[in-house]
Amino acid sequence: MTTTTKPLTDIEIANEATMKPIVEIAEKAGIPLDAVEQYGRFKAKIDTSKVVGDANAKVILVTAISPTPAGEGKSTVTVGLADALYQLDKSVMVALREPSLGPVMGVKGGATGGGYAQVLPMEQINLHFNGDFHAITTANNALSALIDNHLHQGNVLNIDPRRIIWKRVLDLNDRALRHVTVGLGGPLQGVPREDGFDITVASEIMAIFCLATSIQDLKERLKRILIGYTYDRQPVTVGDLQVEGALTLILKEALNPNLVQTIEGTPALIHGGPFANIAHGCNSIIATQTARKLADIVITEAGFGSDLGAEKFLNIKAREAGFKPSAVVIVATIRALKMHGGVAKTELVAQNVEALRVGIANLAQHVANVRNFGLEPVIALNRFITDTEAEIAFVLEWAQANEVRIARTNVWEEGGKGGIELAKQVLEVIEQPNDFHQLYELQETVEQKLTKIVQQVYGGAGVILTDAAKKQLTTIEKNGWDNLPICMAKTQYSLSDQPSLLGRPTDFVVTIREIIPKLGAGFLVCLTGDIMTMPGLPKQPAALRMDVAEDGSAVGLF
Amino acid sequence: MTTTTKPLTDIEIANEATMKPIVEIAEKAGIPLDAVEQYGRFKAKIDTSKVVGDANAKVILVTAISPTPAGEGKSTVTVGLADALYQLDKSVMVALREPSLGPVMGVKGGATGGGYAQVLPMEQINLHFNGDFHAITTANNALSALIDNHLHQGNVLNIDPRRIIWKRVLDLNDRALRHVTVGLGGPLQGVPREDGFDITVASEIMAIFCLATSIQDLKERLKRILIGYTYDRQPVTVGDLQVEGALTLILKEALNPNLVQTIEGTPALIHGGPFANIAHGCNSIIATQTARKLADIVITEAGFGSDLGAEKFLNIKAREAGFKPSAVVIVATIRALKMHGGVAKTELVAQNVEALRVGIANLAQHVANVRNFGLEPVIALNRFITDTEAEIAFVLEWAQANEVRIARTNVWEEGGKGGIELAKQVLEVIEQPNDFHQLYELQETVEQKLTKIVQQVYGGAGVILTDAAKKQLTTIEKNGWDNLPICMAKTQYSLSDQPSLLGRPTDFVVTIREIIPKLGAGFLVCLTGDIMTMPGLPKQPAALRMDVAEDGSAVGLF
Repeated sequence: MTTTTKPLTDIEIANEATMKPIVEIAEKAGIPLDAVEQYGRFKAKIDTSKVVGDANAKVILVTAISPTPAGEGKSTVTVGLADALYQLDKSVMVALREPSLGPVMGVKGGATGGGYAQVLPMEQINLHFNGDFHAITTANNALSALIDNHLHQGNVLNIDPRRIIWKRVLDLNDRALRHVTVGLGGPLQGVPREDGFDITVASEIMAIFCLATSIQDLKERLKRILIGYTYDRQPVTVGDLQVEGALTLILKEALNPNLVQTIEGTPALIHGGPFANIAHGCNSIIATQTARKLADIVITEAGFGSDLGAEKFLNIKAREAGFKPSAVVIVATIRALKMHGGVAKTELVAQNVEALRVGIANLAQHVANVRNFGLEPVIALNRFITDTEAEIAFVLEWAQANEVRIARTNVWEEGGKGGIELAKQVLEVIEQPNDFHQLYELQETVEQKLTKIVQQVYGGAGVILTDAAKKQLTTIEKNGWDNLPICMAKTQYSLSDQPSLLGRPTDFVVTIREIIPKLGAGFLVCLTGDIMTMPGLPKQPAALRMDVAEDGSAVGLF
Repeated sequence: MTTTTKPLTDIEIANEATMKPIVEIAEKAGIPLDAVEQYGRFKAKIDTSKVVGDANAKVILVTAISPTPAGEGKSTVTVGLADALYQLDKSVMVALREPSLGPVMGVKGGATGGGYAQVLPMEQINLHFNGDFHAITTANNALSALIDNHLHQGNVLNIDPRRIIWKRVLDLNDRALRHVTVGLGGPLQGVPREDGFDITVASEIMAIFCLATSIQDLKERLKRILIGYTYDRQPVTVGDLQVEGALTLILKEALNPNLVQTIEGTPALIHGGPFANIAHGCNSIIATQTARKLADIVITEAGFGSDLGAEKFLNIKAREAGFKPSAVVIVATIRALKMHGGVAKTELVAQNVEALRVGIANLAQHVANVRNFGLEPVIALNRFITDTEAEIAFVLEWAQANEVRIARTNVWEEGGKGGIELAKQVLEVIEQPNDFHQLYELQETVEQKLTKIVQQVYGGAGVILTDAAKKQLTTIEKNGWDNLPICMAKTQYSLSDQPSLLGRPTDFVVTIREIIPKLGAGFLVCLTGDIMTMPGLPKQPAALRMDVAEDGSAVGLF
């Protein structure tokens, strides 16, 4: 890539890549052919009941510093690292989350890695993929329809319409649906009540889908979903409505993980996709464990920075699935660290070691976070074309001074080749024993668990609960739900609950404004700050650039 | 089947059937292998750009008498007739609509034919199929989100929020969403306004999807969609919002028709699925025309009785696609005709020739309807186990007296073999020339077109427009949209607009209460009576019976 030639966009690179037939990828991955359900030529669903063996591959988690508008390239590094290990003749699979159509049409335009470190077919993965999110949307909204029908048909369960906590969802960014009233129009049109729509990735069913270990476990979890309370404040679950079977049936096909390939032909399972700022932010346990049966090394990612996705990966997903990760990669870029040091996005091109010196504190917190879990991180310093030698030297020296492993990556431009240095470091780490442990025990009080997360992962002073949250906690304790893990809903932009506090804020207190029991997922969602569970579209949505060209190819995904 | 053995249910028969790999079905149908995109082993999407040849197969339309709770079995006869022609060594394909999940979870439990005349895989076709309806739901709601975002971001187009006619949709029966308010919660949460959800099959995008002849035609139609009016009453279209490209991209994959098979291995294309009581009720033109390139005879159906689906098939779809049907089959059962003669559902087992004599008037109107289009119908008298010899004799004699062809079918129990008599009659009809013509010309006035439909298809006296409808008609005429065909929204239960008027009502006047221009679909939807565009769930929804068994198989679809 020279500076005089306009670089190709991600969709252009993806459209030019030659994909191998998915059955070839499956064969390479050791998947029996009768387990492969093709969805077109280049995608498949895998019947996991036909994949035998023990799930014993080593797990490498890719996380990142606190994201900035400058971009860090976590998915890109995840894919590039897998390709690098593949180039080094390792038995490797990558296990990722599926993109949500809402942000694809909003700001992002696509979410399948970038440059020469992408998963393919880019277009289909970014749009409907194999219908998994549609199935989750449908199951979620079918439950809503069944709840409202129950109210309308006599309300035998005595559900208080004002205390229904189950919301509808769509896989779109649609702020006008955040707060709605439904059931208007008179006695034939249902029971009027307040409701709201979340984005599908925030649905408890998305979390359940990603935490279920089998179709029967899925059904048991769906049955436990708390949908609200009766007029006399008794909890009402999906089991009380007797519709867990129908919801399971709607999700049955989707529960098989999706096989695709990277540009370099490394097998990839992409399945499930909760966001890490409003949910637990990890791909499905079924996909991760299937990959662990097939390969020796599995690379996976968790959403946003280590304070969000990685914390939940380690405290929730690893606990549920019963595995210990072998290494954690923290993706950072010089551009993003400069933003954490106070540089505006428009000023990032200029060298600025001073800003880097300030902003690197953000990376320091993420390194500390990983170490608090008993794991030794490897920093992936992901190259951007404007990085200067002085800036790079500063970060490498900082890493040396802090005795933390670091590797430079250039996977966007070079694919797997640009991740070889990182791969070698990671291979060293996974050969060493580690002292992995969760940060809290389930039997600790909710406040103890919250405090540990805030102090040991966010670097803050502690938590306070609003009166509303305290009242909810009382209900939770009364019902014996307080021994569940915590799923924090927090801004991704700051280690604190204030999006504007970049770098490494200290002495802050996190406000918990709501605690929502997700009994099916098996965690307590703790909402902080003004975290949105339904995003809005920007003034110029990415949708305005999307199109189908005369030759039928996709335009505007990038 | 003896009366002492419990007959198998549809899902049991479907689960026991042995399916051929879909590539084998494709080969048999003459579809080039590079046009086949497998979706699992037994479903495929067909890349129609790779299917060459002229669309010149003869088209046989299957319609029915006015439906009753007794059931007529139109889809079953459609499938059975195709299988019978296949048994007679004819080159035949069947082109059907996709089921909507709303009614599947509501009352129906499934919609893929019945007994030994089914399309397979029954479970997947009844659930998400290949994601087509999900794509339509997503495109529809993405447009809503983009409209509400436009209002929120400054409303440059000056759209009047009170005059937005574009509604959201879900593929569920959910009465609580019929009338909603959105955008509540303050200035950061959008612009408050009244809105409502229709069922996906009622979306204009569903109609567009079924009438589009290519991806570029789809885009042009999407661009023309009228979404509302400005404060100074000027029409606002999707083209004004510049999002037709994004909507087309969302629908691109879905626009390829879906190949499946009948129990007897006859190739079937199933694609699109508007309801005939709230939309035009026919499968996609792309699927029908693709089938017409591949086979010599194409069997297709249109929703409900000939007053609804067939009228629109002949006046709208055949006009848009530019073909002439070669035969029309009218499905009737003795049970249903007895209900039209006033017998209650609980009394249908007893012989009742007198009721039949009254109820057969309904069949007479449907025969007259088909003849009014210049076509000669064949009645399929679809066997039910309680039919008596005297009842059968009465219907056969009636047909002889009225000089209308009739054939007995027993396809539920016997598959294609039970449709041989019908197939032979149909083969005779399609060899004869016919005088097919549409009932109205596009340049006639809206009132003339409406009157012709009511008089010549419903057997009524005429129409009246409410004041609201008259006002809408003035706007339509002012904008030059009055030269579009009519898409009546009317109850399926009666030839009139009153669901309780069974048999063959006369002298009734149909009230048009609303006229909605669907500029993308290219027709004017005329709402009569209390026709619902979003169904509700019954007290005991079919969802309560649905489940996944221990062995992973589907339960409760039938």
